[in-house]
Amino acid sequence: MSKGSLYMLPVPIAENALEIYLPRKTIEKARGINNFLAENAKTARAFLKQLGHPKPIRELNIEEIGHQPDETQIDHWLAPIEKGEDVAVVSESGCPGIADPGAQIVRRAHRKGIRVIPLVGPSSLLLALMASGLDGQKFRFCGYLPIKEPERKDEIQRLEELSLIANGETELFIETPYRNNAMLEDLTKYCKPTTSILVASDITGPNELIQTRTTSEWRHNPVRLPKIPTVFGLLATKSKVRD
Amino acid sequence: MSKGSLYMLPVPIAENALEIYLPRKTIEKARGINNFLAENAKTARAFLKQLGHPKPIRELNIEEIGHQPDETQIDHWLAPIEKGEDVAVVSESGCPGIADPGAQIVRRAHRKGIRVIPLVGPSSLLLALMASGLDGQKFRFCGYLPIKEPERKDEIQRLEELSLIANGETELFIETPYRNNAMLEDLTKYCKPTTSILVASDITGPNELIQTRTTSEWRHNPVRLPKIPTVFGLLATKSKVRD
Repeated sequence: MSKGSLYMLPVPIAENALEIYLPRKTIEKARGINNFLAENAKTARAFLKQLGHPKPIRELNIEEIGHQPDETQIDHWLAPIEKGEDVAVVSESGCPGIADPGAQIVRRAHRKGIRVIPLVGPSSLLLALMASGLDGQKFRFCGYLPIKEPERKDEIQRLEELSLIANGETELFIETPYRNNAMLEDLTKYCKPTTSILVASDITGPNELIQTRTTSEWRHNPVRLPKIPTVFGLLATKSKVRD
Repeated sequence: MSKGSLYMLPVPIAENALEIYLPRKTIEKARGINNFLAENAKTARAFLKQLGHPKPIRELNIEEIGHQPDETQIDHWLAPIEKGEDVAVVSESGCPGIADPGAQIVRRAHRKGIRVIPLVGPSSLLLALMASGLDGQKFRFCGYLPIKEPERKDEIQRLEELSLIANGETELFIETPYRNNAMLEDLTKYCKPTTSILVASDITGPNELIQTRTTSEWRHNPVRLPKIPTVFGLLATKSKVRD
């Protein structure tokens, strides 16, 4: 009997019809899988229903892995694969394993000689970068920044410095939605006037806003950001001062 | 008259049917656009034909932007947008603006107050990372490594060091396909035995190979890589020696 595979299954990132944001290959593959590892079982059930999974949702094997998957459960979660069935890691939003739990499970799968197959779908990070005009030839994603001062200021300025040292590397990060405005204020407060700052909100959603401006432009034209998932970025350049 | 928008249009990354790897939204949007900025006009024409663009391909306005788009042409390329038409930047493979030209054009669009809209599609970098088991909470992409020694060895060891300093940041990079085997050999030669090395070849293609192993595992089980686009990665950990 041949082994199953571990699929990485993305889900849409905004409130919209999944069948127009997921490729047919992703949808069809997901409909053929009966074992899912989900950060949150409830939203995974809703997603699978919306996807038109042919089986009654209650008959699917959906394991909740949470934010910090329990290492001791991974072998159990991967067990169906040894019996020839496929298993899919499904994200809460976007691509599993990217700014999201799932990597430890994949790591174990590689050790066990299980084939891991990524499916195509939306990633807010990648879409933000594509539409940012910042450098996509060299970039870094560093998750969340510290919340407290002075660590936050230090980290923003460290990222600016790293971007500069690497000759204009793009630095991407995210923030909890209710702190979006505080983040943009801090960036405009602490960054150099010529640094480019990206704000990418509600990507693929009805209120999509993707804008890159210099610190000084943001200072002159402040915006209020909605409390929805937002990707931030910065790119520092050797002061061709434009002020 | 309202302005048009600038779309970022991805294309499939392997030789396969685009309608199963691109979401419906991406396909439908692309079919409604008549102005394209392409790295290579010939492959863009082939792609638009395969996509089932409703207009005769020769009637489409396809501008070739090349590898290093000419800054002085950007205003001309964006001109249809001022007349209310949409323009799309189309990649050779994968997502435009990511490890690909396009960012300068987007940057100019932001300056001109043009809306930039990214469309969902495959990215070999992102798919490689999703299926790697390496850390997707903090990662960096740094393009191509130097070809000549000692710069190459120095850069590989610098990346290992950066990964370690950042507590296990994933470092991703690419190589020209005919040098894939040389790259894997150099990684196994210069990295520490416990460092994890990712090889991701022909993603979404018929010979997809995505594997993460430690340096020492690769040394004991060397593979021959095909001459097809491959993403490499590494992640260094504080020597929990497994040898």
